Amino acid sequence: MAKRYWEDFDVGQLGEFGRKLVTAEEIKEFAAEFDPQPMHLDEEAARATPVGGLCASGWHTCGMMMRIVADGFLLNSSSMGAPGVEEVRWLAPVRPGDELRVRATVLDKKASKSRPDLGFLDMLLEVITGSGTCVMTTRSNLMLARRTPA
Amino acid sequence: MAKRYWEDFDVGQLGEFGRKLVTAEEIKEFAAEFDPQPMHLDEEAARATPVGGLCASGWHTCGMMMRIVADGFLLNSSSMGAPGVEEVRWLAPVRPGDELRVRATVLDKKASKSRPDLGFLDMLLEVITGSGTCVMTTRSNLMLARRTPA
Repeated sequence: MAKRYWEDFDVGQLGEFGRKLVTAEEIKEFAAEFDPQPMHLDEEAARATPVGGLCASGWHTCGMMMRIVADGFLLNSSSMGAPGVEEVRWLAPVRPGDELRVRATVLDKKASKSRPDLGFLDMLLEVITGSGTCVMTTRSNLMLARRTPA
Repeated sequence: MAKRYWEDFDVGQLGEFGRKLVTAEEIKEFAAEFDPQPMHLDEEAARATPVGGLCASGWHTCGMMMRIVADGFLLNSSSMGAPGVEEVRWLAPVRPGDELRVRATVLDKKASKSRPDLGFLDMLLEVITGSGTCVMTTRSNLMLARRTPA
C-alpha cells in the first residue's frame, strides 16, 4: 500500500482497525508498572470497587488504541506526531476478553499556516468492543507531512 | 498519613511528587508493545526523525505520570477515578536519563450536584524534568468520595 500523505486523507470516516484481545495478565502487568489501583491489579480486590471487577487502566486503553492506530494506518503515513490530545473520554470499563477495535474519523483537515510542508488532521478515535460498546474516545490534531508543499 | 477525602483538598498547589528515572530500555519496551514508531524504538532510527534521538512515547509519559501521582497521593485518597482527561499537551521530548517529577495543582473543586457522596477536583498535572523543563501537562476532573456526604 502506498504511503499516505496529508493530501491522501479526506474528511469523513477513515476506517475501522484492530482487533486487540485484552487479557487479564496484560491488564495486571500494565497496572503493576503504571497504575497500581485495586480495580486494575487484582480480580478479588477489584470486585470490592465501584467498577465491580478487573478492568484496564484508562492509560492502558490509550496504549492499546495507539498500537491499533499505528498498525492500522499511522506507520504507513507521513505522520509527524501530535502536539497532544484534546480530550480523552473513558466511557465504560475495558474487561479481560474484550476485543478492541478503533474507528477513525477525520473531522477536519487544515494546511499549516506557518509550515508549507505540513498539514493537520482533526481526528476522532473511538475504541469499540466486540459487542459494539464504545469504551473510549479521543480527539487529537495529527501533524502530517504534505507530499507537495503548498 | 491519614487517608485524604475530597474535603481535604484545597484549591492551589498540592505538591510535587516523584522522581522517576527514564531509561532507554523502558522507552523501547513500551514502544515495542504500544507505539512502535522509529523515534521510540531505536536510537539510530530515532536520529533520522525530526525529534533527533530516542524519546518516550507520549502515552508512556502519561503512564509514568500516572504512577507518580498514584504513589504521591492518589492511592492514599478516596479517589473514584476520572471520566477522562480534558487535555494532554506534549511540550518537549522525554529522553533517556530524564528524571520526571509531577507538580499537582487543584484549579477548582466542586461538589457533585447529583451525588451527595462525591466531589470533583479540576486538577492540573505538570510533568517536569530535573533541569526544570515542563515536558507534559494534563488537565482532568478527578472524582473523590466525601468524608461526610452533603
